[in-house]
Amino acid sequence: MTLHTAPGAARSVGGGRALVREAPVAIVCNGATLGVMMATPADLEDFALGFALTEGVLAGLDELREIELVDHAAGTEARLWLAPAAAARVAERQRSLIGPVGCGLCGIDSLAKVARKLPPAPPGVVLPLAEACAAPDLLRAHQPEHDRTRAAHAAGFLVPGRGIVLAREDVGRHNALDKLAGALARAGTDPAGGVLVLTSRVSTEMVQKAASIGIPTIVAVSAATDYAARLAADSGLTLVTRARAGRCEVLAGPERIAGA
Amino acid sequence: MTLHTAPGAARSVGGGRALVREAPVAIVCNGATLGVMMATPADLEDFALGFALTEGVLAGLDELREIELVDHAAGTEARLWLAPAAAARVAERQRSLIGPVGCGLCGIDSLAKVARKLPPAPPGVVLPLAEACAAPDLLRAHQPEHDRTRAAHAAGFLVPGRGIVLAREDVGRHNALDKLAGALARAGTDPAGGVLVLTSRVSTEMVQKAASIGIPTIVAVSAATDYAARLAADSGLTLVTRARAGRCEVLAGPERIAGA
Repeated sequence: MTLHTAPGAARSVGGGRALVREAPVAIVCNGATLGVMMATPADLEDFALGFALTEGVLAGLDELREIELVDHAAGTEARLWLAPAAAARVAERQRSLIGPVGCGLCGIDSLAKVARKLPPAPPGVVLPLAEACAAPDLLRAHQPEHDRTRAAHAAGFLVPGRGIVLAREDVGRHNALDKLAGALARAGTDPAGGVLVLTSRVSTEMVQKAASIGIPTIVAVSAATDYAARLAADSGLTLVTRARAGRCEVLAGPERIAGA
Repeated sequence: MTLHTAPGAARSVGGGRALVREAPVAIVCNGATLGVMMATPADLEDFALGFALTEGVLAGLDELREIELVDHAAGTEARLWLAPAAAARVAERQRSLIGPVGCGLCGIDSLAKVARKLPPAPPGVVLPLAEACAAPDLLRAHQPEHDRTRAAHAAGFLVPGRGIVLAREDVGRHNALDKLAGALARAGTDPAGGVLVLTSRVSTEMVQKAASIGIPTIVAVSAATDYAARLAADSGLTLVTRARAGRCEVLAGPERIAGA
């Protein structure tokens, strides 16, 4: 890799940075693949468990029997072995994805599935406005992959008054959130007792994933989409965006932000 | 929406920005759903066609009979009607996604599918280094949604000496590229005659999508992943990243960058 400076540019700053790692990860439940994602290959037990939790495959850690990581030349298999009730739910879910002639759902049914019902948001904790504005700055100390590559997202869990208690990184923002979800579950941390802090934008799927594991408040350094903001408001979540330089925007649920 | 300033911050800068739009879009081929994506609801014919092209569902525009957009309360259906050969390919592809007991593939087979074979890269055009470094700056003039929201990605098509000839925006970087792919096909523009310019990072899927429609050169304002850089090199593509402030990094295929 060479860093180039175009004619007329002031000067080169030297060699290039390390590239962020990305590799295929298959998440396999009781022998059947749920999905293959490109992810940064670290904390993959957290990732597989968190994906299963945020996508509603697992209702809780007690439904998980075992996680096994198997490395192949083409990537990593994360094998989840589920308790019978969860295994039956997964099989049912996969059957429902298959139409009568081996084709996809019709368009209207597919659209209806996007608007999945979210669980009611727990009351959660109240975060002072100043802590909300500063939350992404606190997360910065937990981003070694970002420091190395300038290309990784992070998701952190902030407990008011205690700062960031857990954080995970990935090249993909959904993956970073899934890894955090898995890490919270394995640590036995109550998702309602803190705040999700994101380095990324907040799209609909990020709100769905947070709500599905019971985190009622999201603070992000970047913007939200209109759909995500409506979904957060309709679901009783708190959504704070563009939290930087001592400022932020409270898009939904100001009752959990003291001083908003 | 209210913009808040934490105690001690210098000052507020006034009201918040508009939120970028995001809505569910189901891409339906001959009555069966290929996928439902959250996308910015603009240029959806381009999006549906481009998605079908970059995902290998359609080999070319000549396989498309008609595109129809149908709005529902839950989102938009983009209905593609395909020529018989393409329709048979889609049906076969969907059958292959279904295992013997209505479950997913096993993990190893799923991982193997990620490493899909890319078509050989066309020779393409040579881009002067200074134009590569400046390409994202040129794209800035074609980003009205970004100007409005500061939260939309863009994909542009740059022809050396002519600048950006086509650009599309979306909250998602994959969607922006798919929209551009559809727009290029509908305009009858040869993908080998120019360069893909991205506001985003370059992950594996972005390289796969570019290669699948025959664009041999990618210039991005942000970084690439290690897997994406290897894939670009192995596939004979040119990959230029961190193109800003008169500098860039040539990660693969320097033969298409004059002066690199």
